[in-house]
Parts: sequence; structure tokens; C-alpha cells
Amino acid sequence: MDLESLKSPTGFVKLMLGELPDEAAFLDYESWWETEGKAISNSIDQAGTPWLRMFDVFGKRVDEILYPPAYWTMLKNGYRAGAVWSAFENGSLAPAYLLGYLTAFYDTGLYCPYTVSLSTAIPLYKYGDDQVKERFLPRMLRKDDSVWQGATWMTEAGGGSDLGTFVETIADQVGDHWLLNGEKYFASNAGAELAVVAARRRGAAPSVHGLSLFLLPRYRQDGSLNYFIRRLKDKIGTRSVPTGEVELRDSQAYLLGKAEQGVYLILETLNISRVANSIGSVALMQRAIADALSFAQQRIAFGKPVSEHPLLRRQIEERVGLLEQAFALTWEAVRLLDTVWQETPRYSESYHLFRLVAHLAKYWTAEQAVQTAKWAMEVHGGMGVLAEYGVERWLREAMILPIWEGTPHRQILDGLEAMQRKQAHELLFRHLAADADPQALEETTAQVEALLRLPEEEREAQAEAVFRRLAVFSAETLRSRLEKDRR
Amino acid sequence: MDLESLKSPTGFVKLMLGELPDEAAFLDYESWWETEGKAISNSIDQAGTPWLRMFDVFGKRVDEILYPPAYWTMLKNGYRAGAVWSAFENGSLAPAYLLGYLTAFYDTGLYCPYTVSLSTAIPLYKYGDDQVKERFLPRMLRKDDSVWQGATWMTEAGGGSDLGTFVETIADQVGDHWLLNGEKYFASNAGAELAVVAARRRGAAPSVHGLSLFLLPRYRQDGSLNYFIRRLKDKIGTRSVPTGEVELRDSQAYLLGKAEQGVYLILETLNISRVANSIGSVALMQRAIADALSFAQQRIAFGKPVSEHPLLRRQIEERVGLLEQAFALTWEAVRLLDTVWQETPRYSESYHLFRLVAHLAKYWTAEQAVQTAKWAMEVHGGMGVLAEYGVERWLREAMILPIWEGTPHRQILDGLEAMQRKQAHELLFRHLAADADPQALEETTAQVEALLRLPEEEREAQAEAVFRRLAVFSAETLRSRLEKDRR
Amino acid sequence: MDLESLKSPTGFVKLMLGELPDEAAFLDYESWWETEGKAISNSIDQAGTPWLRMFDVFGKRVDEILYPPAYWTMLKNGYRAGAVWSAFENGSLAPAYLLGYLTAFYDTGLYCPYTVSLSTAIPLYKYGDDQVKERFLPRMLRKDDSVWQGATWMTEAGGGSDLGTFVETIADQVGDHWLLNGEKYFASNAGAELAVVAARRRGAAPSVHGLSLFLLPRYRQDGSLNYFIRRLKDKIGTRSVPTGEVELRDSQAYLLGKAEQGVYLILETLNISRVANSIGSVALMQRAIADALSFAQQRIAFGKPVSEHPLLRRQIEERVGLLEQAFALTWEAVRLLDTVWQETPRYSESYHLFRLVAHLAKYWTAEQAVQTAKWAMEVHGGMGVLAEYGVERWLREAMILPIWEGTPHRQILDGLEAMQRKQAHELLFRHLAADADPQALEETTAQVEALLRLPEEEREAQAEAVFRRLAVFSAETLRSRLEKDRR
Amino acid sequence: MDLESLKSPTGFVKLMLGELPDEAAFLDYESWWETEGKAISNSIDQAGTPWLRMFDVFGKRVDEILYPPAYWTMLKNGYRAGAVWSAFENGSLAPAYLLGYLTAFYDTGLYCPYTVSLSTAIPLYKYGDDQVKERFLPRMLRKDDSVWQGATWMTEAGGGSDLGTFVETIADQVGDHWLLNGEKYFASNAGAELAVVAARRRGAAPSVHGLSLFLLPRYRQDGSLNYFIRRLKDKIGTRSVPTGEVELRDSQAYLLGKAEQGVYLILETLNISRVANSIGSVALMQRAIADALSFAQQRIAFGKPVSEHPLLRRQIEERVGLLEQAFALTWEAVRLLDTVWQETPRYSESYHLFRLVAHLAKYWTAEQAVQTAKWAMEVHGGMGVLAEYGVERWLREAMILPIWEGTPHRQILDGLEAMQRKQAHELLFRHLAADADPQALEETTAQVEALLRLPEEEREAQAEAVFRRLAVFSAETLRSRLEKDRR
Repeated sequence: MDLESLKSPTGFVKLMLGELPDEAAFLDYESWWETEGKAISNSIDQAGTPWLRMFDVFGKRVDEILYPPAYWTMLKNGYRAGAVWSAFENGSLAPAYLLGYLTAFYDTGLYCPYTVSLSTAIPLYKYGDDQVKERFLPRMLRKDDSVWQGATWMTEAGGGSDLGTFVETIADQVGDHWLLNGEKYFASNAGAELAVVAARRRGAAPSVHGLSLFLLPRYRQDGSLNYFIRRLKDKIGTRSVPTGEVELRDSQAYLLGKAEQGVYLILETLNISRVANSIGSVALMQRAIADALSFAQQRIAFGKPVSEHPLLRRQIEERVGLLEQAFALTWEAVRLLDTVWQETPRYSESYHLFRLVAHLAKYWTAEQAVQTAKWAMEVHGGMGVLAEYGVERWLREAMILPIWEGTPHRQILDGLEAMQRKQAHELLFRHLAADADPQALEETTAQVEALLRLPEEEREAQAEAVFRRLAVFSAETLRSRLEKDRR
Repeated sequence: MDLESLKSPTGFVKLMLGELPDEAAFLDYESWWETEGKAISNSIDQAGTPWLRMFDVFGKRVDEILYPPAYWTMLKNGYRAGAVWSAFENGSLAPAYLLGYLTAFYDTGLYCPYTVSLSTAIPLYKYGDDQVKERFLPRMLRKDDSVWQGATWMTEAGGGSDLGTFVETIADQVGDHWLLNGEKYFASNAGAELAVVAARRRGAAPSVHGLSLFLLPRYRQDGSLNYFIRRLKDKIGTRSVPTGEVELRDSQAYLLGKAEQGVYLILETLNISRVANSIGSVALMQRAIADALSFAQQRIAFGKPVSEHPLLRRQIEERVGLLEQAFALTWEAVRLLDTVWQETPRYSESYHLFRLVAHLAKYWTAEQAVQTAKWAMEVHGGMGVLAEYGVERWLREAMILPIWEGTPHRQILDGLEAMQRKQAHELLFRHLAADADPQALEETTAQVEALLRLPEEEREAQAEAVFRRLAVFSAETLRSRLEKDRR
Repeated sequence: MDLESLKSPTGFVKLMLGELPDEAAFLDYESWWETEGKAISNSIDQAGTPWLRMFDVFGKRVDEILYPPAYWTMLKNGYRAGAVWSAFENGSLAPAYLLGYLTAFYDTGLYCPYTVSLSTAIPLYKYGDDQVKERFLPRMLRKDDSVWQGATWMTEAGGGSDLGTFVETIADQVGDHWLLNGEKYFASNAGAELAVVAARRRGAAPSVHGLSLFLLPRYRQDGSLNYFIRRLKDKIGTRSVPTGEVELRDSQAYLLGKAEQGVYLILETLNISRVANSIGSVALMQRAIADALSFAQQRIAFGKPVSEHPLLRRQIEERVGLLEQAFALTWEAVRLLDTVWQETPRYSESYHLFRLVAHLAKYWTAEQAVQTAKWAMEVHGGMGVLAEYGVERWLREAMILPIWEGTPHRQILDGLEAMQRKQAHELLFRHLAADADPQALEETTAQVEALLRLPEEEREAQAEAVFRRLAVFSAETLRSRLEKDRR
Repeated sequence: MDLESLKSPTGFVKLMLGELPDEAAFLDYESWWETEGKAISNSIDQAGTPWLRMFDVFGKRVDEILYPPAYWTMLKNGYRAGAVWSAFENGSLAPAYLLGYLTAFYDTGLYCPYTVSLSTAIPLYKYGDDQVKERFLPRMLRKDDSVWQGATWMTEAGGGSDLGTFVETIADQVGDHWLLNGEKYFASNAGAELAVVAARRRGAAPSVHGLSLFLLPRYRQDGSLNYFIRRLKDKIGTRSVPTGEVELRDSQAYLLGKAEQGVYLILETLNISRVANSIGSVALMQRAIADALSFAQQRIAFGKPVSEHPLLRRQIEERVGLLEQAFALTWEAVRLLDTVWQETPRYSESYHLFRLVAHLAKYWTAEQAVQTAKWAMEVHGGMGVLAEYGVERWLREAMILPIWEGTPHRQILDGLEAMQRKQAHELLFRHLAADADPQALEETTAQVEALLRLPEEEREAQAEAVFRRLAVFSAETLRSRLEKDRR
């Protein structure tokens, strides 16, 4: 790979995919980031957690999120470029994910509002009844600055992994809508005009099957606040998305889909954002490598640029190899999702294949993003740990990636479940067979099957190593496939 | 290992070493940290970079470092407990390193002032002429709050790895002392009453052999400032040590040792702090595991503590295994150093063996510290990325560890040099043979020898994997040895 | 006045009062501040608004106020010294106010917790029923660090002046206690173990006469939180007292006194803190003068200390004169309060006299505090506007003084009411007559009477100038009286 | 006065002056502030002191001032609108001062860069030799974003009032330029491309007469830094201007005017900025009144807006009266300056009259600005002391006004000197006689004359009251004159 191409996200993507439809628009977007966006993004990060103006000066509750004004310019720019509308215009999610890649190369956190907006628009489009859809969807698809944002709020104070137990928000039906009462604890994009939220219908089962998915507007029909932001979380990174705690008090909401199918709708939502998380991870890898490379090309030691020292040169090559694998694995998740995102329960085999690939990609790319960001700091030496130069920012941003949308443990265990219940591994091996190294295919198959035969406790205990192996095998194979496709 | 013992640094060290001389004093020190120190340390970290008061209100240059007052209580506590004096009272560095372990379990950054003070006192003791030694050494060995601190300043703006090129500070002799002019760019423990600094005698060779080591007091005899702190660095971690940029302007200094042997004295100084860096890395690993464990024991999901979920239980076991290896490798470095720290050039074989072990330990434990801190954040899920709970602090602190006292690249290449020039690998294999797994010994030996036979470019390019393998092999072997010793 | 005596609060008070009972204890307290407290107080101010830890890491609501640990040392020191217990031990509030003077000389904001604790203990003592008193009062009078703190919460989001309209907190009786629901908007000393709060019994009149006063513990009997801190206010000063917004949700509380007399109890509480506000204002004046003086004595311009330049020397003399007047006026408020603080409705004439003096003192001393702090900044020139030297702190602290416990407008209008309804001005003129300058007495009397004869609108419009005149007249007269008393 | 007109700076100025040439341009500028500038300005203030990037990531000294990117948009907008060029295009300073008024209404601190740029361009224009002028002046007059900024640096660490003693910067002549060595301690607009600086020629007298004025570019001809920014000052306000400490090390500079006349050139520079300081003070008064008024019109208590409570209504009227007086006095300073700004020594009588008016305006308007900002905080009650609403910002900004460009003491003593040496009071009385209240004229004249007859010590001690009286008398008279002019 020509190392210089690593310095442009558009350039790298085009190199990987061979061609890039609508390249001019992507180059425009990239160019905006280079000339204006980068400096804005840095200043948002340095400003720390945004402020919440809870009351106006007269004591009226307003819950405004206060960013420096340039934030809104930066945010709206991506919506205009198609962060949400492009999916519905094209019937394909690929352009939105590519835009996300570019965004995340410059500001990982900013990709979150776009992702949760898309993850709101899709269930609204698929599951909203006509009236609700007509009233709200067009506002999310606007191409100007009046566009509405979305948000997806599931987690409560007890924790995010065990939703069946910890969602305590209660929904009561009142005529054509529902009233929600409860608290959401990690509410990304707090302040969004719409949110999809998980809640339990009063009296429903104390398990995931008691959960339903609702659409929650920010304001009631009378203009008053329909949810309250208790506070913003002081995160170490991703400061371009306001993450808050949200209180629902008799908050008006609209049921999406069938009440008893809520858990499936929740998982569909998570699928979209897991793929986005992978996209963001790969973009951040590229950015960290690009920055480390630029530094190493200019930093002189022992008479030559450190990028030309054999040990570092080798490390750079290895990092680029991992980047290509990570991109290939993630891009396969995008392609598969594009074939199934309009499905509703009961799902096809393709859907289960997609799910496994999404788990593998989420797990493995997030890990790579963290390791790459850490390595980039080491390349910068002492400058890497100074707040002044922002090299450390990529590690702060990266650390959210293994955690958001399910920790590594969650990906492994859910992936395991997809293999056990849906034989998703068999679908995957079949899917990859044509391009896989035969010996690697055989060994990996054997390892996975051996794992699945273990008793439950032991299976879980040993799952991580096998899951990692499967991810690496898939990534390597898909990288070869992309390479062949380009020829 | 009894997991509960992980929660106490004294407890863990005792378990690893079988016995702990002067245990009562260590338990006292630990108890102070638990009741008072922890809260102080947290508040120092949250307060961010300390302030530099450059001028008093009348415009007089004063260069005071301003911390919350509790900082000084915390800092002086460790000096009283023996951070420096114990080495000279016992003729052994081991007690000082153990105290450092306890310190770093609670505050990684605070271990730095103790380390650089020890690294100042030792060359002063070994190489200072009688007058200089008599005047300054007793002040560093005081057991009360009037103790003087030290500091070791080598790096300049061009970078820290290639000192031969980038040290531009010039020394001119004037009677019994020297005048130094130049700038130090990463000056840890800025504000110390004494510092050892690298400088080039006017006209000396433009290589490491032109460097000499000098002792620099903070104040001149007339009470005026002898060096100036230009500013403090805004680091993401280790805020318990003020790191600054220092200007030397006709600053009075005293030559340590022979002028032309400076580079050896500089390397001796680095040896002490590399071992300290390893000690700090292991202590931080333990702390991160302890915190993750405590959390996991109390966090409930799917009906039981997450520490009892098989996948996480396995991860904890693996982390503890790595911790034991890291401790064993580091402790060997301490033991070896204790046999050679009073040597002066030319050095014995033991010294070269020590150097290789120190490079391996520095390289491998720092990496483990970062990975463990990262893992601890993941165990905490979303809470891990909030500034509020301080879980992320250990990663911020850890990130300095691979970088301080030489990046991974530096350790690998310097270790390689010790193997090539001094056959330090052969010394190491001999040293470990009795306790090593025979097959692992054979394989590792073969790998190292193969590497050393490669042409230079390729040798450097391939060095990392072999170096890592050698570190793991050594750590595993030394862990077995410690285990046998305990029986 | 010997200017050097301005540098010690104990010294100045003794000079003003001629003698100081229990002087040794005050000198001890002052000495603690000089050696330890000053540095702690500065670091608290620089650390900004304290943090609220709303949830522990497991998602359990805890509402802890997080200060650097030294804060608690500083805070508890004043309670031990008698900030609350001394009033009950001596039957006199004077020692507590003197202790407050010393506290406020060093940290204006810290005097607030002591004041609101005293303002909680007094109504509890006077109006609590036996059971409530027995259960809670002893905890507030402890002389060790287990002492409970109090707080006085009246204001809601609509504003603090018009309590009759804006208190929307509702109280429902349930057996022996009440349940409160509502929100307090400026809750000083949030986190206190006890608070007295204004609430409206359900169905009571929508005026001040519908208000009652309740005692609210922080924890319920079962250990759970009885009130919630929504957030801490980001104030520009007085950071030594955490000011928050408090949510009452079925919060258990105990009625103090007769339900329908709540407004009188609220006003009694305000009386105590208004006098404290005056004490704090005078102490801050002294501190600002002391700092300006110290600076001016050392700053040289045109060949001599600026304190010796005639223009500045004159300004210092004038400031000291105002300080003496402010002290005299405030001390009279303390003396008068000491004679009436145990009264309950209906009140004596002395009570009404006290009220007018308290309004005058609150109004005039707060103004003087601000002007003096501003002047001290000007004396420091450019250094005065730098955060670094903390000169500007006194202005930030001072700015709360005219606003807390009623703005200037409030003092003027309430003072006017006391004059109209209770002829408090006649009581005052009689009270001062013996020591007043006859002509000034005559003129002031005429001005007040003329004002009171005006129609209401015009009376209010013209009130400020007359009220200020009355304050100055009283302050001058009382200063003469103190001077005579000393002879 | 129609109160609503207070909410627009253009509106108020037009009302005061009767007509406003080029009104459309001013309305455009105001409109930009309302729609974009206000939010930028707030975010700059909240971001605190800007950062100084002293070194780039490769260790090269760069001394960049880092603001959020929107700062530069805001800054350049005023230059484009004519902050500097308009003076040279029109031959009148009035348009630049009016633009400053609008700027300062929105951001007091931002008016500083414009002022010091103008104060650089004027001496360059008047005193630069042809070559220097040709090379540098056009760059300061550009109407696009490539415009160069100026700065005026006099004060050193010893203090700003006694320049004769405390300027220790030394200038040595080397061919056509000079080399400067020294340090400037309060360097407003650090980072400017040009600065005028006071320095002492080597060997010149140790008094103000040894000072000369030099033009100092930021970069040398070879592109390297010509001065170094040691650090930025952490000011409590005016964060829109970076104020730093500047080190001159063999810095190339060009002499302005005759070497021995430096002190006159310095005073001319101060004249321009004193008038600007007055303009800024009046604008800030208007802003604070406008904000207080808006709040009071919407804040309800006792059933009606507090702006309609008689006491507050009266206060507002009084504040508006003072605003009109302050404007009239300041505008007279502008008018007088417009007639004399091109004079060089020796000066006309008009120049001395101007100087006295400038001292009176600087002194009195700064005081009014502080008092008005303080009052606006009180009007806001508790909300006034919260950082959240920014009401306190105007007080933080205002506090610089009495101090910058000479403290009150300085204005009084320099004004006194102008009266003694130049009989400037007689010129002033003659200048005002036509519009003055005869009795006030007589009394004020008598007071001034009595003061001037006192012995020196006593004259200085008593000067403040008389000087204040003279300022009020002048302001009242000039307000009447403006009123007549409008008819």
C-alpha cells in the first residue's frame, strides 16, 4: 500500500474498494474537514464535556445542551451530506456508513449522533404506524439544518448487558399513545428531537420478552419538555456527542411494531450501531496510523526520519496489514446488513450470518482501534502523553469502542449463541470457503466445533480465544477477497 | 492465588516473596494510603496539572510549584518512610523498590519523585567529590520534611532517544564549578532542590561521548534561582510529579565522575529508573486487577456477580498469571541491580546480565500495565469511560510507562545491543537454565541466535517478536523459580 | 488605628471591643488558619465548584459532595471550635458570631455552613417537639467530627423574594410526620444531615401565611436518601459551601412550631443569617484592606512604598474608617439579637428595633464589602485581575453578600415596612440618641419622616437614598459609642 | 429616554448624537453580533485563558496562540469593518471609536486588539521613517483577513506606573535597526505581527527621558521568531485578548521618531487607548443596563415585572442618567482627540485640554462601568452569581477598566499635573462655560483652585474628591450640550 494514501480516508476507502461511487461528494466532505472541521473538532474535545443549561435565567426548565456554536455547524454538515437521508434515498445503508467512516476519521464521537439518528429512523420507517411515520419521519430526512436528530436509549442504572432484568421503565397505554416513567442512564445524543426507548409494559414479563420499543419525542404537543436531562456524563472522550441521564415522567411515546416483539426491534437497532462501531473503529485505526506516520516521517533520530528505522518501518507495515483486515471484515458486515436490514421477524439465514459477522467485527475492530491508538502514542514518545498535542485523544476516543454497544464479553457470548442456536458458524464457513486458505479453514472449523461441544461453563470460559481466532480468520479471508475483487 | 490478597500490595508482595522483612513498616505505610492517601491522590489527579507560580505578586521570579497543600503531606510521607535514605542505610535498594511498589499501587506518578531522587542520590554518592558529597548528600537522606528532592534531566527539545545528537546544553568550567546553558524539555520533578543533568563540555565530541553528568542545585549560594522553570507540561496522567521545561542560564553545577565518562553515568541513572518503571508497572497491574475484581464481585448481571461468569473468571485468572510473571521478572531485575549498583566502569558480566533483564522487564511490564488498565476499564463497562469514577485513571497513568525512560523501540534496540556486544543473552540463558522448561529454553535460544545472525537492517526489523518471546520466557521461568523458592 | 492590627481578625476585634473574652481560643483558631487553613481555602477556591457524585459505580443513588479531602478538615475545625455548640453552651450567640468573623476573614464561603447550621439548630431548639428535639439536637451540638450539619432551604425556581407566591413545595401530614414534595432551587450546604425547609400545607393559603417550617433529615430511618441533590450550582465564589438544587419526593419531615406561624419562623431564621452576612461582610472588608495594605507596603514606585504615597494613604485611612463603622453597626445587630433570639411570636419592641438594625447592617455592610474588595484589586494594579494571585477572589466572594439573604431592594423595602408598621425608626432614634451628633440626628429624623409621609409608589421610589443615609448615620453613631465604651 | 433603545448600541449612539453617519454599516456590524458574534464571544469567555502552543510537536519554538477557531472569525470581522483602516481613510478617529463602542457592547476584551492595533498604526504613520512606514503600514490597513495586528508594550515586571524606573529593556543600535533585550510583563495582544515597545537606549538616563519607542515585528526577515511569548496571563476577564509575558532577545526593532522624545510618543499612545478605555466603559455600562432591564422586564415578583417596582424603576432611571453623562464626557474626549491626534511635540493648548478630559473620562467612566456591572448582578439576584448565565461576566470584564492604561490614582495625579503645569483646568472651564450651570461652574472652579493652592502632600491626599467632582461637573455639562446639539 502506498503509505501516503493512509492520510486520506477517501483515498484509503477507494483503494480498498477499487471504486467509490459518488466520490466527488466524499472528497468535498473530506475537504471541509481538512479546512474547517479539524480545528472545530479539536476545540470541542478540549472544551471537555458540554454544559447542560437545565433552567433558563427565569427558572424555567429548558434542558439545553450548550456547545461552542461551531459544534452545530460541524454536526449539521454531516446530516446535510446524507448521514440519514441517503439510506432512504438509495435503499442502501452503504453510503451512510461510508460517510460515517469519513466522519469518524476526523471525530469518532461525532459519528455517534449520525448512527443513533439512523438507528431511530430505521425502526420508525419499518415499524411506525402510518400516522406516526408521516408525522415524524420526514423531519429526520430533511436535508437542511432543520433536520431532527434521533437517539436510542436502552440502558438503565443497573447495567446495559442484562436488559431483561434492568429495564425498569414502565409504559402505560393511554388512548393512541403510551406514558413512560423511568430513567435512562447512558443516553447518547441527549437532547435529540426523537428517541427510541426500551420500556416494559405494565404487568409484562420480567425478562427481555416483556420489553417493547417506543418512539419518544423531545417535546409534547403543547411545546413542553417530554423528557428531562438530569445531567451530562463527564466522559474522557467522544465529547462531540452529549451523553446524559434522562428522566421520563409521564412522557408521551408511541409503540413501534408489536408490543411483544420489542426485544427483536431492540436487537435490530443494536445491529445497526454495532456495524457503525466497527466502521468507527477502522476509521480511528487509519487516523492513528496516519498521524503516527506523519510524525515519524518528520521526526529525526540518529540521522534519519524514524519512519525509516527498520523496527518502526516493520511496525507500520504490520499496522497497515491489520487495518486492511479490519476494513475488510467491517465492510462485509455492511454488505450483509444491506441485504437484511429491511427484514422483520422471523428472520432469514442471511440475517443470522450477518449477526455473527457483526459480532466478530465489533469485537475485533474495537480491540484493534485501541491497540493502534496506544501504539501511535508510543511512536510520538513523550509528546504522546501531553494534552497539548492531542495525540492521546485517539486513545481516549478509542476506549469507548470496545464498550459501547456491548463489551467484548457480550459480543463473544452473543456470537456463541448465534453459533449454537442458529449454526451461524456453518453459514460463515460456507460464506468464506471460496476465498479461505484451506488449512486455516479446516483448523478454525475444528476449533469452533470443539468449543461448541464443551459443557456450558467450560464453553464460555474458553470462548474468547476461539472467537478471536475466528475473527482473525474471517478478516484475513475477507481481505484476500477484497483484493481479488479489485483485480 | 487467593484473589483477596490482590487487594493489598503488601499482601501480594509477601505472597510472592514468601516473606517480607520489615513488614510492619510496610503495613503502616499501606494503612496511611488507605485512610488518607487515596483521597489525596484522587484529588491531585482531578485537579489536573499543577500550577507554576513564576513570579510573586511583586514581579520577582520565584518558580514555585503550586499543588493543593495535601500534596506535600503525601509526598513527604514516602521520603520519611525511606524512599531514599533506606538504600544508604541498608546498602540495598530492595527496600526502596518495595516502598515504590506500595506507592505506585496507590499513585503511579508519585513514585517518580522518589525514583528520580534516588537516581540523584546514587551518582552523587558514587561520583561526587568529597566536598560536593558532604555538602549535598546529607540533605537528601534526611528523615524529616526538610529532605531535599532530586531530579534527572537529560532530554532536550530534539528528543530523548538520541542524546548524542540532541543534548545542546553547554558546560563551561569556572574554577571549582561549571556554568551550564541550555534547556531541558521533559524535566520530571521540576522544582527539586538538586538535579543531575547531562551537558556537553564546550568543544567536546558531538556524540554521546561528549556528554558529562553534572549536579545542579536549585538555588545559588546567594539564594537566587539557579535554574528557571519555563512551564509545566500538561500531561494526561502522573500529575503527582510536576514535569516541566527548565532553562539553564549560567547555572552553577558540579561535575560528577570523570568528564569523559558521562554517558556511562547517564546510563547508570537510567538503569535505576528503568527498574523503578517496571516496579511501577507491576504495581499498577495489581491495582487495576484489584479494582476490576472488586467491581466484578459486586456487579450483578443475569442473577449473579459478573466475577462468577465463566468468561470473566477466566480472564481474571489469566491476568493474575501475567501479574505473577511480571512481578517475578521485575524482582529479578531488582535483585541483580542490588549486586551491581555500586560498580563503576568498567563493568562486570553481572552488570550486562542485569542490563538485559532490565530492558526486558521495562519493555514487557509496561506493555502489561497498559493492557491490564485497558481491560479493567472494559470490565467496568460504561462506568469505565467516565471521569467521575476514576477507572480510566489507571490507563492514563499506565500510558506513560512504555514511554518514560525509553520507548519499547529503545528497550528492544538497546537489549539487542547488549546481546550482540556483550553476549548478554548467553548470560541470561545460563542464569535461567536451572529453572527453565527445557524445550522453551531450547526454542528461545534458537530464536535469539537466529535473530543475531541476520544482517543489521533485517535484525532490527524482526527484533520485536523475538524480544517479546525472550521476555515471556524469562518471566515464566522466574515465576517458577519464585514459586520454588517459597516452598 | 494601628494599621498592623488590621492584619489579624482577632487583633482588630479586640481593638474594637476593648476586650475579648476567651481570646486564647480565638488566637488558636486564627493561628490554625494562618499555618494550615489559608492554603486549604485557596486550593478549594481554585478547584472550582465541588463535584456531586450522584450515583456510585454500581448505579446506586448516593448524592455525595466531593471536595478535596482537606476541605473536611477545614470545615470540621470550625464546628469543633464552637460554630454551633457555643450558642447553646453560653446562651449567647456572640461567641458564634465572633468565630464567624474569624472564619470569614479567611474564607467567606465557609462561614455559610456554620451559619445555616446555627439557623437550623435554633428553630429546632425553640420549636421542635420533645421527641424531635431529643433525637436531632444533640447531634448538632457534638464537639467532634461526627457533628451534624444543618441547612435552610426556602427559595424555589420562581425566585427568593416573593416566597408567598413561589414556594410550591407541598406538605401532607402522615401520622407523626409530613411528606414533602417539591424542589428547592438555591439550597446552600446541600448534603447537610438536617435542613429546615419552607413548604405549604396542602390546601393552605397561596400567601406567606400558608407556609410552614419543617425539619428534614438527609436520610430516612431505613438509611435511604430522604432528599435528592439534582446538581450543584457553579458559583463564581463561596465555593467552600456546596449550593445545590434539591428535590423532595415524599421526603419525611417534621413540623416546627405551629403550622400557621411558619412565616414568622422563616423570618427568624433569616434574621440569624442576615446578621451573619453582615459579620461576613465586615470580615471580608478587613481582609481586603489587610491584603491591599500588605501589598502597598512592599510595592515600590517613584522611590517609596506606594502605601506612603499621599493619595493612597488617604484612601487607606478612609477605608479603615468605614471598616470601623461597619463593624460597629454589625456588632450592634449581634447585641440586639442576643437579647431577642429566644422570643417567639408575638414579638417585643426590641425585636422590631433589632430587625431594622439588621436590615440596615445587611444592606450597608454588603455594599461596603464589595466596594472594598474592588478597591483592593485596584491597589494591586494589573496583578489584581489575574486569577493567579487570588486578589480577585475577595470580589468574587463579596458579590454574593448583597444578594444572599435578600438583595438590597429587599432590605430597603422590609426595613421600610418595619418603620411604617412598627415605628422601628422611632425605636432606633431613641436607641441612638445618647451618642448621636444632634444635628445629624435631627436631619436624619426629618428625612425618614418625610419619606414615610409620601404616597406608597413615591415612598418606595425614594427609599434607597434615605435608607442609606439612615445606615450611615447609625454606623457613625455606633462607632462613636464603641469608642466611648472602650475608654 | 426610550428604554428599548438601550438594547441596541447603534440605537443608543444615534439617539445621543442625533445622527450617525454610515449608519447602515454599523447596523450590519451589530446584526452580525446578534446572530453570530454573541454566542462566539460567550464561548471564548467560558473557555478561559487561551492556550499558548510554545513548541510544535517536533520541539520547534512556534509561540502560537490557540483559540477556538471561531475566535479568528470574530476578531477579523472588526478589522474588516474598519477598526484600523477607517482612521486613515477618513482622517478621523471617530468611526473607529464608534466601531469600538459596538464591539465593546458585545465583547469588552475584543476591543483591546483593535485599540492596540490603532495605537500601533498611528505612531508608525506619524513617526516611522519612510522605509519602515512603507514596509509595514499597508499591512495594518488591509481590509481582508491578511491584515496585521499591532500591540503596545510598555510595562515590565516592576510595575506599569513608574516607567522611568521600571523599563529595563535595553536597545542597542546596529546599522539601520536596533536590538532589544528585556522582558515585557503585561503584553496585550501577544502574538501581534507588530508591536510598539518602550526601551532605553544603552547608557540613556534612568528616567522617563531615557526611553524611546520602537517598532518590533513578530518575525525576523528570515522568518524566525523575533520575540518570544513566555506565557499567557490567566485573567479573570477580557479573554478575547491574549495577554502575555514577552521576552526580547536580540529582537530587531526600528526607532520611531526622535530617540530622546520617546516618552512623549508613549504618552500619545496611551492617550489613544485611554479614550478607547472610556468608550469601552460606556459600552459596557449600556450592555449591563440592557441585560438588567431585559431580565427585570420578564422577572415577575409580587404579581408584576420587577422593572415596574418603583424602587427598581428609579434605579434604572438613575443608571440611564449616568450612562448619558458618561457617553457625553467620553464623546468629548473623542472629539478633542480628533483635533489633536496628528500633533507632534511641542503640543498646542488643545492638546492639554484633551489630556485633562481624557484623564477625567478614563477615571470616571471606568468607575461607572464597574458599579453598573455590579448593580446588574444584584438585579439578577441569585442568578447573578452563577457562572452559568454569564451575568457576572460584565463585572469580570469591567474590573480591568479602572486598571488598564493607568489606575485611578494615575489618572488623578496625571490630571493634577496637567492642571498645575498647563492650567488645563482653566482651558476646561472655558471650554464648558457656555453650557455649564453657573453655580456648579463657580463651585467647581473654587474647589479646583483651592486644591491647587495646597502644599504638595496635602494636595495629592485631597485630590480624589475634587477630581471626581470635576468629572461629574464635566459629564453633566457635556450631557446638556449634547442634548442642545440634538435639538
